[in-house]
Amino acid sequence: MADQKKMVDDITSMDVDFAKWYTDICRKAELIEYTSVKGCMVIRPYGYAIWENIQKILDTKFKESGHENVCMPMFIPESLLQKEKDHVEGFAPEVAWVTHGGSEKLEERLCVRPTSEVLFCEHYANIIQSHRDLPKLYNQWVSVVRWEKTTRPFLRSREFLWQEGHTIHATAEEAIEETKRMLNIYADFCEQSLAMPVIRGKKTESDKFAGAISTYAIEALMHDGKALQAGTSHYFGDGFAKAFDIQFQSKDNKLEYPHQTSWGVTTRLIGAIIMTHGDDNGLVLPPDVAPIQAVIIPVAQHKEGVLEKASELKAELQNQFRVKIDDTDNSPGWKFAEYEMKGVPIRIEIGPRDIENNQCVLVTRHNREKTIVSLNNLSEEIAKKLAEVKEGLYQKALANREKHTYRAETMDEIKSQIAEKGDGFVEAMWCGDEACEKKVKEETGVSSRCIPFEGKHFANKCVCCGKPARHVVVWGNAY
Amino acid sequence: MADQKKMVDDITSMDVDFAKWYTDICRKAELIEYTSVKGCMVIRPYGYAIWENIQKILDTKFKESGHENVCMPMFIPESLLQKEKDHVEGFAPEVAWVTHGGSEKLEERLCVRPTSEVLFCEHYANIIQSHRDLPKLYNQWVSVVRWEKTTRPFLRSREFLWQEGHTIHATAEEAIEETKRMLNIYADFCEQSLAMPVIRGKKTESDKFAGAISTYAIEALMHDGKALQAGTSHYFGDGFAKAFDIQFQSKDNKLEYPHQTSWGVTTRLIGAIIMTHGDDNGLVLPPDVAPIQAVIIPVAQHKEGVLEKASELKAELQNQFRVKIDDTDNSPGWKFAEYEMKGVPIRIEIGPRDIENNQCVLVTRHNREKTIVSLNNLSEEIAKKLAEVKEGLYQKALANREKHTYRAETMDEIKSQIAEKGDGFVEAMWCGDEACEKKVKEETGVSSRCIPFEGKHFANKCVCCGKPARHVVVWGNAY
Repeated sequence: MADQKKMVDDITSMDVDFAKWYTDICRKAELIEYTSVKGCMVIRPYGYAIWENIQKILDTKFKESGHENVCMPMFIPESLLQKEKDHVEGFAPEVAWVTHGGSEKLEERLCVRPTSEVLFCEHYANIIQSHRDLPKLYNQWVSVVRWEKTTRPFLRSREFLWQEGHTIHATAEEAIEETKRMLNIYADFCEQSLAMPVIRGKKTESDKFAGAISTYAIEALMHDGKALQAGTSHYFGDGFAKAFDIQFQSKDNKLEYPHQTSWGVTTRLIGAIIMTHGDDNGLVLPPDVAPIQAVIIPVAQHKEGVLEKASELKAELQNQFRVKIDDTDNSPGWKFAEYEMKGVPIRIEIGPRDIENNQCVLVTRHNREKTIVSLNNLSEEIAKKLAEVKEGLYQKALANREKHTYRAETMDEIKSQIAEKGDGFVEAMWCGDEACEKKVKEETGVSSRCIPFEGKHFANKCVCCGKPARHVVVWGNAY
Repeated sequence: MADQKKMVDDITSMDVDFAKWYTDICRKAELIEYTSVKGCMVIRPYGYAIWENIQKILDTKFKESGHENVCMPMFIPESLLQKEKDHVEGFAPEVAWVTHGGSEKLEERLCVRPTSEVLFCEHYANIIQSHRDLPKLYNQWVSVVRWEKTTRPFLRSREFLWQEGHTIHATAEEAIEETKRMLNIYADFCEQSLAMPVIRGKKTESDKFAGAISTYAIEALMHDGKALQAGTSHYFGDGFAKAFDIQFQSKDNKLEYPHQTSWGVTTRLIGAIIMTHGDDNGLVLPPDVAPIQAVIIPVAQHKEGVLEKASELKAELQNQFRVKIDDTDNSPGWKFAEYEMKGVPIRIEIGPRDIENNQCVLVTRHNREKTIVSLNNLSEEIAKKLAEVKEGLYQKALANREKHTYRAETMDEIKSQIAEKGDGFVEAMWCGDEACEKKVKEETGVSSRCIPFEGKHFANKCVCCGKPARHVVVWGNAY
């Protein structure tokens, strides 16, 4: 019990210090450990298993929609990075530079990829000649490096894992369709697999990805009221194609420039899971990506038949679910706290009295509800519970977002509702003028903004200048 | 037919120029493409799909044997790399150095990992206190960088993909057992899934991994008679633990140093597949890792019912096999050549006459044998054929190795049999003295050597000095 007490004491309450609560969970649930390289972390087995589950689901979706995986080099020569002007301006200040190979100075320095548009462009220029070579729908699962000043596990690190999709198409229409398709795949994944509601929208001109014509994004609201950009999808037009001289012979035998996209999600999604579903007892994992979906805890395991029955249950469940049995000599209480900390969606308790009654106890992590179920159809009960957990998590997160979404018709309302409280999303009308966007940012202190696809106009005037409004903008304080 | 002719003409015959044959296949089968970074390549979808299949099979074997995946940073601070003396000597001359982050010079330069022993050690020192924390059985799938002077696709590149297993154990016995277990997992994978016979053995003292007490390796013989090291597994003893101050409290409450291993295979395995099974028509892929196991080629596809039937066959087969249908308007002859080039194990031809007779034609890539089979039980026929292909590939490769394995009892015999012909494995007896090993290398020009676990002593005297022999050594010219 000493151990159990210690473990629970160790997590800072989220109301006391949200940032500390977050890093406590990252470390106590054994998701990550720090290293001697600032801003770089070890992703430990339990954290990496979450990422593997994310990868499996998304990779299947990517392949079903016709995408193929490739692998580009991690190095980009300085001259290659410089080929597209906006792009290099956006990334050059934050790349890591390799200057020496062994003891020799390199003729040209190489950056470690912060993103791989230029590498894909160089490759496309080599392999695309005809409309028959289009489209190319490529993706890669790699890590990238951005030399950030302030870092936090999963949310902002100097090296992070991600997937980057890069596609190239004969027409602008096809490329725009792809950009939106991938944003929707991300959004559906977040909502269906991570039980995390997201706003689908477009970034403003001043907030686009370096080199893009338009950037789409999904935004989620965290427990502390801050906004988190969970995925982005960019349409490039033919700007990169022109910079890299990628041309193809069209069906009419003309030389044309193709149109490109790129899109990505990162290990940041793990941070989003923590801050959307977690509580003061630790992590709460959505079933689709939980490394352990149900943990079996034998109660009074020294008594005859208990461990045998627990093993039987595991054998029965393990083909359908990710299930673990903890038969170590720690106390049941310690084990309960341990798997709550680790966010395992369902705990299955089985003791001598349960066995006598041909039943077991299911406890769902997110609401601590206990249910006694018969052992006759345990698989079905578990499947049903996991579906309930997912729905419960989603509805809870959605209610939280709705509770913290406000409408503002004046600058003061933005200030009082979000900038001062640091809390929630604020919808405000906007004329579309960059000067107003800048003024809202500077005067109210909000940072993230997104034009939702399904934003409903609720006023006619721009919140800043009073001229006719063209867009709803969702403002927030961004991670 | 012009296209077809071009395609076949483009591959250099392996007897004319083996090195060119190899790179022709890498590029014409669309496995890789070069980039502007010397020694780094793009792994294209068809090449990457082979790697994904290798990953899937090995990752399952690793997990079944209790290993967990993690992810370490890609950067190693110079001071950390220097902690284990032998290790830094082995790797420092060939690492890439990051000296700047953005526009700022780093306080300490970082190398891009050439291998990750020191990162795992730093982590172990943080997380291991008690015997209860042992063993840790970790693995990661990442890329590493070694600044090689001469490079070749898959065989030797500056950046390459691999998996690196790193484990830590309470006892030396357990660690040695792990080292051997993983070598056997590699060997079984090569023989069973890649149809590539390998010699399992131990490296000599002078040829060990930097920092290891012993290195085990599997060696395969390529078509040109050269040897290729296909995987290695290292036992470190407690040397790293001492250098990194990793200690644990034993069951008897004593502070002890744990014992470590590491083991890895790389994308080099794809090079091994090419050079073990390939021929003058292109790639020949073993079924377990072939991205396409069977390709359906409709013959006279404009005729009524042909494409429909081809689609039916695909629908029937696709749950069990990786199957593709090529219904483009290229000629059947062009398609035959294309999928031979790509090494697809089975071609399924289906035309109007076949449909009439309720049959199709199966052609196996490695021996071009044609079989006419009934459509009634096509799945079974394909499964049977794929098993035959695998066995056929293995026996062919084994026969080739046996044909090119010689025994030498004098230095002159080594010279005439392998160094001069550049061909095959030579078994020679060895007294165990490093001076003799060095002399054999220098005087005969062979490079690779390995002490096979199952080497049969065939003479009493060392091939070099004539003193009593202690080991059989298999010599070769190494890739």
